[in-house]
Amino acid sequence: MSQLNEVLPDLSQIRAAATRIAPHARVTPVMCSPALDALSGAKLYFKCEHLQRGGAFKFRGACNAVWSLDEARAARGVVTHSSGNHGNALALAAATRGIAAHVVVPEGAVRAKLAAIERAGATLHRCAPTQAAREAMCEEVRRATGAELVHPYADRRVIAGQGTVALELLQQIPELDALITPVGGGGLASGVAIAAHGIDPALALFGAEPLGADDAAQSMAHGERVTTVVPDTVCDGLRALIGERNLDALRTHHVEIITVSDAETIAAMQLLWSELKQVVEVSSATVLAAILQQPARFAGRRVGVVITGGNVDLQALPWS
Amino acid sequence: MSQLNEVLPDLSQIRAAATRIAPHARVTPVMCSPALDALSGAKLYFKCEHLQRGGAFKFRGACNAVWSLDEARAARGVVTHSSGNHGNALALAAATRGIAAHVVVPEGAVRAKLAAIERAGATLHRCAPTQAAREAMCEEVRRATGAELVHPYADRRVIAGQGTVALELLQQIPELDALITPVGGGGLASGVAIAAHGIDPALALFGAEPLGADDAAQSMAHGERVTTVVPDTVCDGLRALIGERNLDALRTHHVEIITVSDAETIAAMQLLWSELKQVVEVSSATVLAAILQQPARFAGRRVGVVITGGNVDLQALPWS
Repeated sequence: MSQLNEVLPDLSQIRAAATRIAPHARVTPVMCSPALDALSGAKLYFKCEHLQRGGAFKFRGACNAVWSLDEARAARGVVTHSSGNHGNALALAAATRGIAAHVVVPEGAVRAKLAAIERAGATLHRCAPTQAAREAMCEEVRRATGAELVHPYADRRVIAGQGTVALELLQQIPELDALITPVGGGGLASGVAIAAHGIDPALALFGAEPLGADDAAQSMAHGERVTTVVPDTVCDGLRALIGERNLDALRTHHVEIITVSDAETIAAMQLLWSELKQVVEVSSATVLAAILQQPARFAGRRVGVVITGGNVDLQALPWS
Repeated sequence: MSQLNEVLPDLSQIRAAATRIAPHARVTPVMCSPALDALSGAKLYFKCEHLQRGGAFKFRGACNAVWSLDEARAARGVVTHSSGNHGNALALAAATRGIAAHVVVPEGAVRAKLAAIERAGATLHRCAPTQAAREAMCEEVRRATGAELVHPYADRRVIAGQGTVALELLQQIPELDALITPVGGGGLASGVAIAAHGIDPALALFGAEPLGADDAAQSMAHGERVTTVVPDTVCDGLRALIGERNLDALRTHHVEIITVSDAETIAAMQLLWSELKQVVEVSSATVLAAILQQPARFAGRRVGVVITGGNVDLQALPWS
């Protein structure tokens, strides 16, 4: 990854990302639920990124990265390591440009997810299920093919793409008081913070993080990045440690992290399914869990709530 | 129920219903899925009535019935027997007018559903779980209160309300070639047939019926109403025998009934959850099951697909 791509994007780069991905990404709907409003005491606007291409907001960042490449670099393809939504998103984004995508996946990854990535046209590269093995394999593919590394959350182009969620939501619902996203590696949370405060510095920003992967909360509390957390949470999309630049953005924009237990998240997930009638993945439910845990912070406010994804294994629901 | 209300509505009455319910009902979105289009070979437009108030299209018919009453009759309230979506819809509709709703429910009905009906403000009347007991209790409540009976599917006002689904869909997607709904008692199927053919007589109309409750298919085949079917299907919303007038409408409009097995329906339900990311109830999935079972009938056509409801017991999914 070039040095340039490690710098945080600014609002103009997020706006440029929105223009760049517009021909490919969906404008996702915003949904409301009188029942969930009553339950929370707030007015909730759910930004439905589970209805994005590939079933997650990740397509935005991947698509911006793919279409940011000049012709020569694009011709050599892209590579990442992820068996989850980012791998799938990068595969789909590469397909929109007709370029190769290489996705490094750890052995033992969920078959259905791998099949989806292959269906999207990517080449899978299997490696041992360790961070070191993933990075080594990524580097190997990069050297062999010249493919551009597109990191899931530390890449400026990816952060800019994820930030378009906030641009779009604030266009759809201009008068928000607060905005909340889940926090994993922090690609979404940082992009949204930059975009949202670029448009409205008065917006209160929140992040929801699983208690079992609360490195961002600890990092914010300690004033420096805590990397000792060993993730233990049902939220498979939020196990990554927060990136250094992503953390910088959360600090700069005073994003308040609310930690939620898996039990709270699973209960919130069921509420989203039964009240919104939306199939959202467990990581997405952290945001509603946080709102219900801290009603005083949200009561009476107009809150944008980013629902991040809907890729669920229907055979293995967390409450069954 | 007055004789008048047993006559089928015409297009003008369905248009009047649309105007009548507009202040209360939601205009539900239409969703598409490239993956389901690819799978079916057709272009599918899913009319999302699971996002209707109360989580089902039933609110339309109930609302039209409630707001069709003159002041004096309205003041005496409404009554029906249904532990399912119609009971809930009538309770919600009555609440929009501030009148009493009485819902006769059989003992043994699902608690969560009864709680929802009570939350909506209705009075529950429990009876033995037989058709005779339900009707007797309904009559008893009607005599005691003067409440107006609103039958779930044989009532003209209800059929007119359900027909507004087709009006709305054809406004949203004017150039459909075909339209398919589930068939239970036939309130929706008959209302949609009258509305759809009133607007475009060339539309091909289909109904999807569970193999284990195929009285409509048998009735259409034999040229007269078959009432000997003992329903045995996972589709709890489609166990009612088709009404006589409802069947008349299906015959007049040449609605072709496609029967589907529960296994086909459950597989289609999972597809709707994973591809559309929508929580739809099992009865709603009969339509996609029918399309996938009979691809030649739909291939290359623009098909309106009515998703009827999304009230699901998340603890008892049919595939788990």
